[in-house]
Amino acid sequence: MGYEQITYAVEDGIATVTLNRPDRMNAYTNVMRAEMIDVFDRIDADDAVRAVVVTGAGRAFCAGADLQSGGETFNKDASDDMFGDDLLEDGNPRDGGGTVVLRIAACLKPVIGAINGAAVGVGITFTLPMDVRIASGNAKFGFVFARRGIVAEAASSWYLPRVVGISQAMEWAMTGRVFPAAEALEGRLVSRIVEPEDLLPTAYALAREVADNTSGVAVAAIRRLMYAGLSAETPWQAHAADSRLMAELGAAPDAAEGVTSFLEKRPAVFPMSVSKDLPRVPEFPKHLEN
Amino acid sequence: MGYEQITYAVEDGIATVTLNRPDRMNAYTNVMRAEMIDVFDRIDADDAVRAVVVTGAGRAFCAGADLQSGGETFNKDASDDMFGDDLLEDGNPRDGGGTVVLRIAACLKPVIGAINGAAVGVGITFTLPMDVRIASGNAKFGFVFARRGIVAEAASSWYLPRVVGISQAMEWAMTGRVFPAAEALEGRLVSRIVEPEDLLPTAYALAREVADNTSGVAVAAIRRLMYAGLSAETPWQAHAADSRLMAELGAAPDAAEGVTSFLEKRPAVFPMSVSKDLPRVPEFPKHLEN
Amino acid sequence: MGYEQITYAVEDGIATVTLNRPDRMNAYTNVMRAEMIDVFDRIDADDAVRAVVVTGAGRAFCAGADLQSGGETFNKDASDDMFGDDLLEDGNPRDGGGTVVLRIAACLKPVIGAINGAAVGVGITFTLPMDVRIASGNAKFGFVFARRGIVAEAASSWYLPRVVGISQAMEWAMTGRVFPAAEALEGRLVSRIVEPEDLLPTAYALAREVADNTSGVAVAAIRRLMYAGLSAETPWQAHAADSRLMAELGAAPDAAEGVTSFLEKRPAVFPMSVSKDLPRVPEFPKHLEN
Repeated sequence: MGYEQITYAVEDGIATVTLNRPDRMNAYTNVMRAEMIDVFDRIDADDAVRAVVVTGAGRAFCAGADLQSGGETFNKDASDDMFGDDLLEDGNPRDGGGTVVLRIAACLKPVIGAINGAAVGVGITFTLPMDVRIASGNAKFGFVFARRGIVAEAASSWYLPRVVGISQAMEWAMTGRVFPAAEALEGRLVSRIVEPEDLLPTAYALAREVADNTSGVAVAAIRRLMYAGLSAETPWQAHAADSRLMAELGAAPDAAEGVTSFLEKRPAVFPMSVSKDLPRVPEFPKHLEN
Repeated sequence: MGYEQITYAVEDGIATVTLNRPDRMNAYTNVMRAEMIDVFDRIDADDAVRAVVVTGAGRAFCAGADLQSGGETFNKDASDDMFGDDLLEDGNPRDGGGTVVLRIAACLKPVIGAINGAAVGVGITFTLPMDVRIASGNAKFGFVFARRGIVAEAASSWYLPRVVGISQAMEWAMTGRVFPAAEALEGRLVSRIVEPEDLLPTAYALAREVADNTSGVAVAAIRRLMYAGLSAETPWQAHAADSRLMAELGAAPDAAEGVTSFLEKRPAVFPMSVSKDLPRVPEFPKHLEN
Repeated sequence: MGYEQITYAVEDGIATVTLNRPDRMNAYTNVMRAEMIDVFDRIDADDAVRAVVVTGAGRAFCAGADLQSGGETFNKDASDDMFGDDLLEDGNPRDGGGTVVLRIAACLKPVIGAINGAAVGVGITFTLPMDVRIASGNAKFGFVFARRGIVAEAASSWYLPRVVGISQAMEWAMTGRVFPAAEALEGRLVSRIVEPEDLLPTAYALAREVADNTSGVAVAAIRRLMYAGLSAETPWQAHAADSRLMAELGAAPDAAEGVTSFLEKRPAVFPMSVSKDLPRVPEFPKHLEN
């Protein structure tokens, strides 16, 4: 694959991305950042991939920033691990975790986080644009930024209050506490807790529900539409966007097959492909630019 | 009443709208669409209506689109069942479910969905602008669009992630699964599950809380204000809107009666009427245009 | 202190603001409004304050508007208790509760509501910009506005649907019902219910998590960033904001101490101060103007 810090495999419609620095608890680096962005480009380009599972090798999911640079870890003038390669319009470097998050946000396939162990700092914030997070019972979590003297990053100020509510988001962010899976479930950061040995099977079962039953073009359009709807100011904007997509997709072959197969009580075989047939979907300013 | 596919009744301040094609599981059609919009116009115009209950006749609530046109069901060039009569600015037809949703969004009375059975496709998305959804234990739900090759419509990309959270919204939309009432409750799509025979009594009891205790003008202003606040970018915008309404309503007769009756420990008799006395409430661009 | 209707104390990094009209159930007045705004100015100016607890003296938290003016209570031409001293651009007076809310929204320290008894009307809406609300089991709540003929104020149309969801927000606002702590917890208006004697200890324990472990500058930046993120249209806006803050704070002394102390397994001693060292944080139009 040419990846150093992640692995990538596709089987029967489901891609697995594994953070793979188990000796460093899969701590995040600039190499991992670039590889994550690259692998999502591959995922979007490969029509054989219908859903994605992201997990970690070894006992951790992702311990956050690799602190090998010590007190200089987050200093852009001393370390390049935490920042992207390009600049914002104001000349500041782009937060690296955010570049991964915006790439996952733009992904055309559903993304499931299978959190197998510690997910701390960027190790949890970069999961927020994933659609569903499932945790092993021995996972632990921490938005520890305030304890390190920095801010919650990776666009988490947009995602976290929308995923768990502003009160829960602030409680975790203002204390920086590390908390167990049960608290993550109670606060709706994860959808389910399962036994460690059931984690990947549960994630794959969810991915299979997508892969076995749905139109890839419809799912891609829905994924963009739903996050665009969450960004939209008014229902009217959502109405305009989904009217256009209903007009276009409603007259396309997947809709004919979707209804016909349902009426004939047989599995659908959808003819369209994401890479060729996806209609123009909502593009809010810079929303999906990674 | 002149309705073919719904029925409408008003009793003691509470309107009941019943989807009424029990032989077709109350499947949605363009006729039903037009009748739903019409009935909400009547509801808003009738000061005797203080709250609305929407339910279905027979064993289903609404099975979604009527699939009698088979593979052409969602094709705007072959069927007019899924689209409205007017066009968007870009010349596309407007998604029909969305026209119902935006009409319910603009309603001046609280709307309670009493989901008595299957609520699938547009049969569930058009309930999202209702204020409270209560389900019978034998109800089932499905955002099945991806299985039919189309997108989640009826402005659901705006409503669904705000009602149930983006993660739950994506899990249901990306799988297209049909799920039972317990999962709907767990995911906060419905507020309560009750026994089938308790469904309408529960909905009416909630409607009575409104009808028996509150100012209709205040409730209408609050309903618009609250959804406008959910659309607003900042708290300052909400502050400007509610300052204006507090200034106007605070000096009006219902406020005097509301406080006086409370101090005198007697039921309030509010003198103002929605049709005549509702002050200008927030109108975000096209937010409330149906 | 010079306060008539509140008390203020700071001990070991934690400020306590107590609503102090126990003979009037701490009912809200224009004096209380001005004192609340003043005390948050003091809190922001005092680097010794790392977190804030707001509670009520006696058996109530805050019974809402003081109704001593009877039917004229909410009439701006007859009473000045419910409105601020300055005007909106359109010449209307500003809703007084909203001026308190916007001041708390702008606070640079986390704010914890310790709700010890009845919290009704403005007595609950003005807690919505607080980060966490904890309730005594004997607290009760009511968004009673519709029963008084007025609207939910204090920018609650922005906060309430974001804190508890639009369906729960509408159920409480359209009925105006008074409800017990258990319903508030179920609806996520409060994060926890505790025994009355445990209320302040629980609030202080949470405040201590902040005070003992985190950088004040980081927490202030995170608090502004998180609410700005909730106001932001797209993740890209949040990404731009947190990139700037990561670049600035990542190179600053607190980040060096945060990482170094963690690696040395010792408590951090953060050198920076909020009053002197806080970088420019996101300022959405009028978002943080009180």
